[in-house]
Amino acid sequence: MVSTMVSNNISVDCVIFGFDFERLNVLLVDRTLLDADGRVIFTDRTLTGNHVFVDETLDAAAHRIPADLTGLDNIYLEQFRTFGSPDRIRRPNDQLWLRSCGRDPERRVVTVGYVALLARRDIRLIWKGRNVKWYPVDEVGDLAFDHNQILAEALKYIRNKLINEPSVGFELLPPKFTLTQLQTVYEVILGVRLDKRNFRKKTARMSYLIPLDEKQTGVAHKPAQLYSFDKELYETSRKDFNSFFI
Amino acid sequence: MVSTMVSNNISVDCVIFGFDFERLNVLLVDRTLLDADGRVIFTDRTLTGNHVFVDETLDAAAHRIPADLTGLDNIYLEQFRTFGSPDRIRRPNDQLWLRSCGRDPERRVVTVGYVALLARRDIRLIWKGRNVKWYPVDEVGDLAFDHNQILAEALKYIRNKLINEPSVGFELLPPKFTLTQLQTVYEVILGVRLDKRNFRKKTARMSYLIPLDEKQTGVAHKPAQLYSFDKELYETSRKDFNSFFI
Repeated sequence: MVSTMVSNNISVDCVIFGFDFERLNVLLVDRTLLDADGRVIFTDRTLTGNHVFVDETLDAAAHRIPADLTGLDNIYLEQFRTFGSPDRIRRPNDQLWLRSCGRDPERRVVTVGYVALLARRDIRLIWKGRNVKWYPVDEVGDLAFDHNQILAEALKYIRNKLINEPSVGFELLPPKFTLTQLQTVYEVILGVRLDKRNFRKKTARMSYLIPLDEKQTGVAHKPAQLYSFDKELYETSRKDFNSFFI
Repeated sequence: MVSTMVSNNISVDCVIFGFDFERLNVLLVDRTLLDADGRVIFTDRTLTGNHVFVDETLDAAAHRIPADLTGLDNIYLEQFRTFGSPDRIRRPNDQLWLRSCGRDPERRVVTVGYVALLARRDIRLIWKGRNVKWYPVDEVGDLAFDHNQILAEALKYIRNKLINEPSVGFELLPPKFTLTQLQTVYEVILGVRLDKRNFRKKTARMSYLIPLDEKQTGVAHKPAQLYSFDKELYETSRKDFNSFFI
């Protein structure tokens, strides 16, 4: 039988990014502390996080988060950095919150950070009894604990990843997409506007980008050509790149 | 005053790579368990690891390792992955070892993995009362806990890093080096033999590689031209690369 005891000074936090064809968004959970009379002491937001059960690997604990929220199992998920500063739980609101949960507010909690990438899709709006919602990454405000820092590091991680491993860009798109949508993925992650002609030159060199015999439907403008991402061709082209020196 | 109490289910492990102009080496520490009569129960090796003091950040705890071993402070050090499987401490020898140290062998220990890179330099031969020594990475044998897995992941990490961020290659070299020595760094990390002509074409494009007005001394063969790495030029050239899309 799997134990449901938790390892109480280890947690996982998942920075779940989603793309809505316009902006890069992150999933946040409402956190509201009430006093004995039900009055709000404070309200703010956190990243999506989990305890780790004593018999569970870190990857499995992290995996439960996007799986619970979407019902899907094959989500892009990667560990990117661990956060364990003794100061990360020391702000007054965080201390009140930990006490209210019966946790020792003096005890360091090390949290292992994961990134998940989602194309726009349905999520549960209530998760662990709390409200959960998408927010544009540049409008998250002041988050709980060190979650602003975790979010900033996660962004840095996927920026670097996108430049070095273009496949991650496709994780934010549906199976069929336009080149303009792909360009927007690069723009929202890198935080820059890109020149369309240069970008088209770049995509023309992506042998794993497959033009489909299909166009967009239901758009007001001239419907654009649809493309798909061929993962197998991508892996092959990467092997060529890596053997550059041989 | 800084507390010397340790956070006893969190540790840091440091995969310290060193290059001796021929092979990639890793620093390992002897671990020997003796019975009450001083007879050896088993002997094997571990990576260099540290406890984390309760008031200490993870980075600081990791940093103490290469600093203690070399007396130097400006060592390349990066967190690369955290290992927390409940099984990582469950092999019989590891359980005996934990008991002998007065630790609860049932309690999961999460360890945060760091990579350090050193050019060939002196290290302390005794560290925390134990022998420490360089081993070629492909001759480490069966290590304690999950340290073979941590070493394998660290190697994967620096391979990927070297391809995407060439600056790490220079961390394994002294301030002045030959192109053949640089090529050997690539060969030992990527685990392949490289064609010299192709490699020279590659280095000719590295604007941050500065030919010096100096040649090797004290070598039996024809002395080769020496080079240095210009970090500032490197950063500038990387900015150009990253702005490719703009």
